[in-house]
Amino acid sequence: MIIIGELINASRKAIGAAIEGKDAEAIKKVARDQFEAGANFIDVNAGIFVGEEPAYLKWLVETVQEEVDAPCAIDSPDPKAIEAGLAVHKGTPMINSISLEKERYDKLLPILAGTDLRVIALCMSDEGMPETVEDRLKIADKLVNGLIQKNVKVENIFVDPLVQPISVNNTFGVEFLDSVEEIMKRFPGIHTACGLSNISYGLPARKFMNQAFMVMAIAKGLDGAIMNPLDQKMMANIIAAEALAGKDKFCMSYLKAFRAKKFEV
Amino acid sequence: MIIIGELINASRKAIGAAIEGKDAEAIKKVARDQFEAGANFIDVNAGIFVGEEPAYLKWLVETVQEEVDAPCAIDSPDPKAIEAGLAVHKGTPMINSISLEKERYDKLLPILAGTDLRVIALCMSDEGMPETVEDRLKIADKLVNGLIQKNVKVENIFVDPLVQPISVNNTFGVEFLDSVEEIMKRFPGIHTACGLSNISYGLPARKFMNQAFMVMAIAKGLDGAIMNPLDQKMMANIIAAEALAGKDKFCMSYLKAFRAKKFEV
Repeated sequence: MIIIGELINASRKAIGAAIEGKDAEAIKKVARDQFEAGANFIDVNAGIFVGEEPAYLKWLVETVQEEVDAPCAIDSPDPKAIEAGLAVHKGTPMINSISLEKERYDKLLPILAGTDLRVIALCMSDEGMPETVEDRLKIADKLVNGLIQKNVKVENIFVDPLVQPISVNNTFGVEFLDSVEEIMKRFPGIHTACGLSNISYGLPARKFMNQAFMVMAIAKGLDGAIMNPLDQKMMANIIAAEALAGKDKFCMSYLKAFRAKKFEV
Repeated sequence: MIIIGELINASRKAIGAAIEGKDAEAIKKVARDQFEAGANFIDVNAGIFVGEEPAYLKWLVETVQEEVDAPCAIDSPDPKAIEAGLAVHKGTPMINSISLEKERYDKLLPILAGTDLRVIALCMSDEGMPETVEDRLKIADKLVNGLIQKNVKVENIFVDPLVQPISVNNTFGVEFLDSVEEIMKRFPGIHTACGLSNISYGLPARKFMNQAFMVMAIAKGLDGAIMNPLDQKMMANIIAAEALAGKDKFCMSYLKAFRAKKFEV
């Protein structure tokens, strides 16, 4: 599972304040905590600061990479902000995210063309949010083929099929899960990654439901997640599900997690 | 999820003693507890009592059905024992189980032919335990087609694809899960049901792993389980997974379970 740690997001109150106050130590702590908990990418988002996003993203990338030896997921739809982050980034970051919405697509494709950048390809178009497997696959086909034509390698693409709440429609869980399975089959070598917590919107016991949905998604082939890696129960569920999905040779990670008492949370 | 409560099994020490001592109250309590916890069938097994199995199974069926208004799963490979149980059973029980092992198959098929009995069809043959999806589908095809030819309705068949431990081979979880999916696709209307705990044999934190595997199996279409319905964490996971799998209209069961504090265990 490729984990994109989502905590450095300006829309979270403490993070927004830390960014505005240039509190590097606060940002570094959240970066380190996520990295030590297993994050493969550290997401950086300064989206709330209109006009200042490029400068803040640059500072975030620098600050995070002073602390941890991990790539960032540069979380913005704005090419100027992305390029400001890219200019100072060491190694190969992820762009979060391109979509099929025309303006976003046209602006981000040139940045990605011919690079080794990882990219989240969000199944969203100007026609709105997809609901069925067919809706999602139609968008995913166009996005993936568009990226491949611009020499983006399939293994650098992380399709986000977009989770919608089952409280709105009982079939939304299945439509998402079947989309993951179909995308992983249709494009060998591709990844799928997304935030899952929207699934339980409007329902109680959300954390419990989110954990079950993560485990189900792993059963269907999901191999990436935009999440809080400090959520120990979620991480324990991921470790067990990956062992069960045959992705943990000799159950080494599972056994290591057991010895670290990770199943006792 | 169709739940077959597994606790009335003579190989469990307290149950073996209760059967031998004809302690009807002890058996009735276990029957009632499982029924109230959500069991749809009460499994009865007196397999350890060689020669006395027919008499004991008859007594078990009578005792259970004096207490709860639920069908039994008559758990024996012996036609005499099954017929003794059937003779006193009210309603339509399940037979646990037929397999493709020649002796068992030939003896049980006439009992099932043309009836409305539910039956667990175990993916096992005289060639041994199946390992791959292909192994399982080969056996399932023969079993299901054999039963259908003898006028057993497909919706009364519960295929058990047979769980094997991932500690033996890392792929055994995936082979099982993909078998569930393929069986459910290949025979519309059929059920899959099995005990899952073997998956974690030889590993630590087995309960945690078993819960994750149940959730994954539900994602792949599993709709039956031979299990301990008094395992509250497992039941909570099943309720959440079924809601996420679109099998819980308006999330009614999920919301009811939340109000009953079932996610707080």
